[in-house]
Amino acid sequence: MRRCVITVGDLGEFGVINRITGRLPQGAAVMLGPGDDAAIVRVPDGRVVVSTDLLLEGRHFRRDWSSGYDVGRKAAAQNLADVAAMGAVPTSIVVGLGIPADLPLTWLDTLTDGFRDECAEVGASVAGGDVTRCDMVVIGVTALGDLGGRAPVKRSGARPGQVVAVSGRLGHAAAGWALLEAGAPLDSSALQQAVAAHRRPRPPYAAGPQAAELGASAMLDVSDGLVQDLGHIAEASGVRVELDPQALAVGEPVAVAAKELGADPLEWVLTGGEDHALAAVFPAEVRLPPSWQVVGRVVEGEGIAVYGREIGRPGWDHFR
Amino acid sequence: MRRCVITVGDLGEFGVINRITGRLPQGAAVMLGPGDDAAIVRVPDGRVVVSTDLLLEGRHFRRDWSSGYDVGRKAAAQNLADVAAMGAVPTSIVVGLGIPADLPLTWLDTLTDGFRDECAEVGASVAGGDVTRCDMVVIGVTALGDLGGRAPVKRSGARPGQVVAVSGRLGHAAAGWALLEAGAPLDSSALQQAVAAHRRPRPPYAAGPQAAELGASAMLDVSDGLVQDLGHIAEASGVRVELDPQALAVGEPVAVAAKELGADPLEWVLTGGEDHALAAVFPAEVRLPPSWQVVGRVVEGEGIAVYGREIGRPGWDHFR
Repeated sequence: MRRCVITVGDLGEFGVINRITGRLPQGAAVMLGPGDDAAIVRVPDGRVVVSTDLLLEGRHFRRDWSSGYDVGRKAAAQNLADVAAMGAVPTSIVVGLGIPADLPLTWLDTLTDGFRDECAEVGASVAGGDVTRCDMVVIGVTALGDLGGRAPVKRSGARPGQVVAVSGRLGHAAAGWALLEAGAPLDSSALQQAVAAHRRPRPPYAAGPQAAELGASAMLDVSDGLVQDLGHIAEASGVRVELDPQALAVGEPVAVAAKELGADPLEWVLTGGEDHALAAVFPAEVRLPPSWQVVGRVVEGEGIAVYGREIGRPGWDHFR
Repeated sequence: MRRCVITVGDLGEFGVINRITGRLPQGAAVMLGPGDDAAIVRVPDGRVVVSTDLLLEGRHFRRDWSSGYDVGRKAAAQNLADVAAMGAVPTSIVVGLGIPADLPLTWLDTLTDGFRDECAEVGASVAGGDVTRCDMVVIGVTALGDLGGRAPVKRSGARPGQVVAVSGRLGHAAAGWALLEAGAPLDSSALQQAVAAHRRPRPPYAAGPQAAELGASAMLDVSDGLVQDLGHIAEASGVRVELDPQALAVGEPVAVAAKELGADPLEWVLTGGEDHALAAVFPAEVRLPPSWQVVGRVVEGEGIAVYGREIGRPGWDHFR
């Protein structure tokens, strides 16, 4: 019996575009959605926040490890998190998509649904995009956001005497990646959660504008590893960041995965990227809500220190 | 004697980012440029126009046919043209870049300069981006623009009795591509101009907002071929477009290239993409400036007709 898989090539370019846009409801901020030369998005503030990232098959995801839906959610999430890390509310994304002609249509459909559902978490939508043929799946996502009258929270505002706090998960995605790479059996809920975290990050979007309202002096999205990313704040602000590893929560999935693989869980928490937690610096007198955990402090000097630890590789470098 | 070529891999990710951003002055609309989680761009109008495209090595350009500088200009141009085609003025682009570790640094530098110089044509700049490693060069460009209080010129506003006009070159890039593909000797200025047009489109940016001011009812950027792209206006507007091939200028580079290759020059003019001309529909009573040439009319009905010609392949489909 022949099994018939409908592919992207069967639909042709405009069939693919219609297929994608047919699955995408538009959010309130989108004044003109897909189908014209460009989209038009409302930016009441008069300043638009914009962030872009490329996700490449084989480098950022593998089709045998992640579903189309997971990849769509992850691609949207990492850009929406960048917008939130400025203290803004994401309003929309646009997506440039390179896909092979033999890509099953179901994969494209679920990818689209992943974009849609991740955007819906913050009330945003996919306002437009571009589709082209490529031997591998290439995804370029650009997210837009609105500051709602707030000042942007940059990387350069940290001052000595302030505290460093984190919102969201750390080390989960790195643990999940390590499990997949080792081919470890995923025979417990904790291990499955770690792998799920690699497949689909869950950035604490609301904590971004919340931190801005609370008076955060610096903030970023932890995409390359906490130590490396806080190093950016230290450098941009001309200060030294001291991290207290005792204050860093080691989630159960991270702890169980580390035991399974004989790894150091704190290493993942300190240097693992792709969970898209937010790290921010606050004046010491700010009373932080439970969504933010204090994990260190800002002092005079430069660089970053972790009490009681040597820092080896601080995080990810795409070319090293 | 050893020849030493400095590559992207020698610099590492952050070295590459610093190298790129060091070459990029910022335009007036950019409030926060590269170096943070996201850029912030001024949009006085309160509505941001946004368009995104992927350019892939081997599909949209070849490194042996185009310099880094040409690729940078082309990548920026095709997105800036989309913004102009809405009647907006481009304010900035953000760029997602996938590059091999062995990419010569000079190629990256000239690519960056290409982005910069094309943006400068319209007073825009590269506000931000992302760099990752990839086996081939992948470029995702997203352009932003401001409508300056004007209504956007969509594809859906064409009405029977109106005229179709074009601003910019048609068929030049297609002729240049055909010359390169045939390996034809480029022994005349006209042939060199055709190839230059493939390498670097020259969209008539100012004609976009100009058309909006003149009262254009529909407009788009000719990226896939005039016949196919006007077909989008016909479909979106529920009208029929009739083109008069006699009214279409065949540029000297197109005519000379056609003679060289024994091709039909009008075929390139009608179906060749990538020159990024603008095509617009105007009420018949509008007096058009010399930047716009009338090439057809809008009537009741559907689809597109070219007087005296059968239409074969109307333009480009990435999956067919």
